[in-house]
Amino acid sequence: MGADLQSNTSLSPGIQAMVPFLYAAWSDRHLSVHEIESIREEAAGLPFLSREDKILLLEWSDPARPPARERYQQWLSSGREAAGALPTDRPASLAELGAWLGLAAEEDADGRREFWGEQLPALTRIEQMLWGIEEDTYRSLFPLYDEREKLAEAITGSRIDPKVLQAILEDGHTDVIERTKAILLRPSFERPTLRIKEDYREQVLRWCKELAQEGIGALSYPEEYGGQDSMSDYAAAFETIAYHDLSLVIKFGVQFGLWGGAVYNLGTKYHHDKYLQATGQLELPGCFAMTETGHGSNVRGLETTAVYDSETEELIVHSPSVAAGKEYIGNAMHARMAAVFCQLIVDGKSHGVHAVVVPIRDEQGLVLPGIRVEDNGYKMGLNGVDNGRLWFDHVRVPVANLLNKYGGINEAGEYESPIESPGRRFFTMLGTLVGGRVFVPRAGLSAAKSALAIAVRYGLRRRQFPSESMRSETIIMDYPNQQRRLIPLVAKAYAIHFGLDHLLVRFVNRTESEMREIEAMAAGLKSYATWFTTAAIQECREATGGKGYLAENRIADLKADTDIFTTFEGDNTVLMQLLAKSLLTEFKKSFQEDGNFAVLKFIGRRVGTIVTEQNPYVVRQTDREHLESRSFYQSAFHFRTRRLVSTLAQRLRAYIKDGKSAYEAGLLCQTHMIAAAEAYVEQLVLDESLARIDDLRGARPAASGNTSDVSSNDKPSTEAVDLLEKTILLYAVHTIEHHAGWYMESDYISGQKSKAIRKLVDVLCAELRPEAGVLVDGFGIPDELLGAPIAL
Amino acid sequence: MGADLQSNTSLSPGIQAMVPFLYAAWSDRHLSVHEIESIREEAAGLPFLSREDKILLLEWSDPARPPARERYQQWLSSGREAAGALPTDRPASLAELGAWLGLAAEEDADGRREFWGEQLPALTRIEQMLWGIEEDTYRSLFPLYDEREKLAEAITGSRIDPKVLQAILEDGHTDVIERTKAILLRPSFERPTLRIKEDYREQVLRWCKELAQEGIGALSYPEEYGGQDSMSDYAAAFETIAYHDLSLVIKFGVQFGLWGGAVYNLGTKYHHDKYLQATGQLELPGCFAMTETGHGSNVRGLETTAVYDSETEELIVHSPSVAAGKEYIGNAMHARMAAVFCQLIVDGKSHGVHAVVVPIRDEQGLVLPGIRVEDNGYKMGLNGVDNGRLWFDHVRVPVANLLNKYGGINEAGEYESPIESPGRRFFTMLGTLVGGRVFVPRAGLSAAKSALAIAVRYGLRRRQFPSESMRSETIIMDYPNQQRRLIPLVAKAYAIHFGLDHLLVRFVNRTESEMREIEAMAAGLKSYATWFTTAAIQECREATGGKGYLAENRIADLKADTDIFTTFEGDNTVLMQLLAKSLLTEFKKSFQEDGNFAVLKFIGRRVGTIVTEQNPYVVRQTDREHLESRSFYQSAFHFRTRRLVSTLAQRLRAYIKDGKSAYEAGLLCQTHMIAAAEAYVEQLVLDESLARIDDLRGARPAASGNTSDVSSNDKPSTEAVDLLEKTILLYAVHTIEHHAGWYMESDYISGQKSKAIRKLVDVLCAELRPEAGVLVDGFGIPDELLGAPIAL
Repeated sequence: MGADLQSNTSLSPGIQAMVPFLYAAWSDRHLSVHEIESIREEAAGLPFLSREDKILLLEWSDPARPPARERYQQWLSSGREAAGALPTDRPASLAELGAWLGLAAEEDADGRREFWGEQLPALTRIEQMLWGIEEDTYRSLFPLYDEREKLAEAITGSRIDPKVLQAILEDGHTDVIERTKAILLRPSFERPTLRIKEDYREQVLRWCKELAQEGIGALSYPEEYGGQDSMSDYAAAFETIAYHDLSLVIKFGVQFGLWGGAVYNLGTKYHHDKYLQATGQLELPGCFAMTETGHGSNVRGLETTAVYDSETEELIVHSPSVAAGKEYIGNAMHARMAAVFCQLIVDGKSHGVHAVVVPIRDEQGLVLPGIRVEDNGYKMGLNGVDNGRLWFDHVRVPVANLLNKYGGINEAGEYESPIESPGRRFFTMLGTLVGGRVFVPRAGLSAAKSALAIAVRYGLRRRQFPSESMRSETIIMDYPNQQRRLIPLVAKAYAIHFGLDHLLVRFVNRTESEMREIEAMAAGLKSYATWFTTAAIQECREATGGKGYLAENRIADLKADTDIFTTFEGDNTVLMQLLAKSLLTEFKKSFQEDGNFAVLKFIGRRVGTIVTEQNPYVVRQTDREHLESRSFYQSAFHFRTRRLVSTLAQRLRAYIKDGKSAYEAGLLCQTHMIAAAEAYVEQLVLDESLARIDDLRGARPAASGNTSDVSSNDKPSTEAVDLLEKTILLYAVHTIEHHAGWYMESDYISGQKSKAIRKLVDVLCAELRPEAGVLVDGFGIPDELLGAPIAL
Repeated sequence: MGADLQSNTSLSPGIQAMVPFLYAAWSDRHLSVHEIESIREEAAGLPFLSREDKILLLEWSDPARPPARERYQQWLSSGREAAGALPTDRPASLAELGAWLGLAAEEDADGRREFWGEQLPALTRIEQMLWGIEEDTYRSLFPLYDEREKLAEAITGSRIDPKVLQAILEDGHTDVIERTKAILLRPSFERPTLRIKEDYREQVLRWCKELAQEGIGALSYPEEYGGQDSMSDYAAAFETIAYHDLSLVIKFGVQFGLWGGAVYNLGTKYHHDKYLQATGQLELPGCFAMTETGHGSNVRGLETTAVYDSETEELIVHSPSVAAGKEYIGNAMHARMAAVFCQLIVDGKSHGVHAVVVPIRDEQGLVLPGIRVEDNGYKMGLNGVDNGRLWFDHVRVPVANLLNKYGGINEAGEYESPIESPGRRFFTMLGTLVGGRVFVPRAGLSAAKSALAIAVRYGLRRRQFPSESMRSETIIMDYPNQQRRLIPLVAKAYAIHFGLDHLLVRFVNRTESEMREIEAMAAGLKSYATWFTTAAIQECREATGGKGYLAENRIADLKADTDIFTTFEGDNTVLMQLLAKSLLTEFKKSFQEDGNFAVLKFIGRRVGTIVTEQNPYVVRQTDREHLESRSFYQSAFHFRTRRLVSTLAQRLRAYIKDGKSAYEAGLLCQTHMIAAAEAYVEQLVLDESLARIDDLRGARPAASGNTSDVSSNDKPSTEAVDLLEKTILLYAVHTIEHHAGWYMESDYISGQKSKAIRKLVDVLCAELRPEAGVLVDGFGIPDELLGAPIAL
């Protein structure tokens, strides 16, 4: 019976109510026979089905007898039609649709409204049995499957002006940033596809020259050499250039920061007068020849020599072996000059590493005699930077070419230096070059910001299963997994920005006595920030799917260009150990300075921690207010650093008591050292971010984080600072979540609390989701520089 | 006094004993004034120092008065000289060196031997105060700083023949692998640098043709079409080709697997006869045109149409919009044919997605009328693959071009299909194409193996601070951090290999009823393996520093080429959710099949778990024997899957009871779903690896994991299997360590046990370190294909 029915309209209200379930059951391949059976059983008890209805239902849901295509199509079309009439302010529901269809089929619809309302729970029970069905089924039944449209509206619904966030990040350097952007937006800065390295390098050189002519390269030089004597303006320009092209920013850094920096920091007035003006204008391209093939991280052991010839008052620069060749030297193929780091030998005696200016090409760009240059060839990225190898075969230069600020040869032909100890002299010289580690992470952060802006914007526009026939579908950023992927990274970018700003301020205002601390901090932040860059861009690539793989969308190049940053200017793992050693020294010092009192103080601090943080109540406390309080999350960061450094010291001591050498003990504790260093950097990043927020709220009188006073005068809106604080909070709890295992091992949080933290991360991601667009717009990257079609 | 001493030899024995400490104190920049003070104090109590010695010592260690260079050099040279005479079978020690110097300065050295021996503890105490000093100081004092040479010998000291491991991995496919390698090692397969995509694509096409001519492309086709009817041989050849060039293997897969596979699996004898022979020979290049710009992951919603014109008995293939264009189609620029997936419309009625063969170029390679092709341009990698977009403007093809195995148009012009339900028909058609998800991870795994082989070999050869003047220094792989980075990845590569082999065997021998399970398994393993590839190659890049960034060392290309694998053939996060849904269905089924009994069984299993695994004793048990037992680690994997799937089901149910739709509930549990799917894949990978090991030991009678019986006949040595088992053990405990936070939250392990697991990972890394070379050699990648200069 009923098999020949031509239209649904002739069906009873009871069967009409079952139509959505019949459609769902047959459309979904994941429903097993068993599931269908149980639905049939459940349906058999429904009060609104007549005996005829039940027989028909059994027939139409017989797994052995699939419905004819026509009937199936009818179910779909009547379901869709009814769904279109349903209110859209609540989730799509088969039960509601069924009740609606049942009601609509009644002769006296109004009179039966209450009856069908009462059937909802029973219908919902059946829907619950179907929870494994495909979302496609819902999609095809509900053409207006769009209660999520409210969220989509939120894309542009934030009340925060991204310009406010941008001003906070620019921190008083808006002028120089705008000036730099204006240059980068000129037609001459359009980015062509240049696959052949020579073409790409020429283009990058031209761009570099244009920036130089505009005075951007010389910003940090004294005014008498065409500069503006502002390291922080230089830094702001530098990170802005990184939005354009990473080969450009690296070449820019090599020319003005490394080569120019060597001349300025290691040379004396003679060298400044001779080279600095032309360097700042890029009329004199130079390179920084330190690293040797055989000495990646060990500068002290460089093998290149500069032997003083007292007869001619010349230095003879020489590479004694192939492995002594200078390796991976940026600007090597364009440079006319090289600052060559070599062992200075006077009268047969070595005085350690010094830098000598050696001309390597003539004005026509021809390589000079005695110089051998070899192209490093293609690299994973940065193919617009001309890296190469350099060898010197007894190249003679006047002794005046020795950059002699920290050690030179006097008129009597004797070596002399204001710093007696060769070790201290060496490290003083190197210390002046720590700028590389201050700047590289800023370029990396710019690249990460670009990738995040592209991925977030794409996520806000792209719908997972778009189709012209469906008005609205879930945008990708509404998937919790996508939020989880991207929003904590956006938060971390903000936090690292504040950390790097702090480092820059410390670096710009450094005194001699602070250098060791600043070097350690630079080593740690450089590592932390560049690891972040690598991970963040990778995530953005995956989060943008095939689109992110196309060169036109830029993520590919951002990834390839920055991948070396974890190695540049010191391998991250080596740098982290350097920082750990410095932390240990500080740790030891704090004991030795105050004697037993310090030990008591330290123990006191630990006891205090145990009382206030590690008591069983706090360890298990999971309410949101507690988890969002600084007394929880900031304390957790500090606890981690303190605990890791002190246990590291204990372990090292124990190994040495066991007869291990200090070196061996360090080797055995290598991963512990890196963890301790990471904890310290995370604490620094969090502390400085929070300090910055306090500044913005005016809670702290002086804006110690600012290098100028512009931003503190224009106090941003409370809402913007609230958003920023929530962003930093997400950074904090996400970081704690990442270390949850360690915190549980240390009895600092319970398993329950760990779960609560995970949930808080989810909640914060969802709460920040409507602000995601504003947060990435706050980076202030012009659309033209972002470039990626998927982001525009 | 003493300031004019010309030689150390005139110093007293006591001062001589202090020379290493004086040198260390002054050479090291990290020693603070406070440290020096405390050393001075400690030294003041030394019994072997005379009053004069102490005065001299105070003078020479006065922080305000650094030593003259000559004196400093004398300290170094006398220290080095003595160090050269010391035994090298124990760690370098300043204390021992000091005692030795003191002894050597005695007039009656032999008589004073005991005295100086007794001074060692006091000297050691001073050395302990110096533990923050730079290893460089040790290096410069100890030219034979090489007790680690024993470890270096171990590089080649393994007793295992890598060929045994290789045979296990090849699992009976050695012949076809060797045959493929022989072709890849021909001069015609040399890899030039081809930066311009058109050049690169032509090269890859030539390589593909040569492989086709040798019969490699057709391996899986029936013999009558030039094949050998062996899918597993095809798979073995495929993963071998991936060692050569990833563009090649992808183009190879598109031509023979996707295009050829569509013809073979969706077509009938007419199509096989017409296309298959020429396809296998690559005389007929074809492409697989499924994905559309607007429909990344939603094949069912494709918009391209094929309308049947009964007058002419033709199909009219048409792209109704720009977004309906076929996107990212491999082989698009070379293909003459396309298998176009489109909605088949007969008599105004849609019959769902079908594939139609559409000629897109003529024999001269000119694009045919009505076809529009657009190059996808440069990509992050795989630039040797010609991806493009395709549009069709009312292109007419004979109705015979419809690949009609699962649905066609009969002579009466009516649609007919052996499968009634459109949904089931669609999934049956798609199911035959699951091969892509079986194969892509194999290519990815080959790439990861290549990168790991390069990085491990580099780590075994490269010394951190090499210098011609020092005989031996720590090789990189001896750094615990480097071991931690690479060895667990090598272990995981082995485990995934066994997992993928299992999938292949299931796929090759599949029956209709298993398809859903195999599809789910393929979705999960594809995701897990390709995520591994991305992470592993990234780690290898960083672990090889600047060298890894140079194109010549191949890691850059391996990274860029495989980065899309996480998106290819379905985005990993989407695939993982697919698997999770399937797990839920299984889970529900197991309840419904057995009714209450199943629930009791499940609860019983949980209670059992709690009794045997989660009792307080086991939760805290940390002895190595326990941690290395399958009853711990394999159970832990199973517990995780079970727990995550059942809590997922509970959460979904709860959300739905709260009134959420099934779709919304799924959205809210998205990360949970992915975690559950990952747990399942990890369990599968571990179980299959262990099953394989049991097979090799002969513990299981049948080699169910083998697709041939060659390898089980040649039973490998116990040592090789032991090594393999330790490798898989490392995979297991490293995975548990990765999830330690979750296990602690679930009260499955205590904090103490978590620490013990971390330590066991360290220990296993160190124990496997001497086998690292053998393990990567076991991958069986010929040096010529590995290619990277740093690995050779």
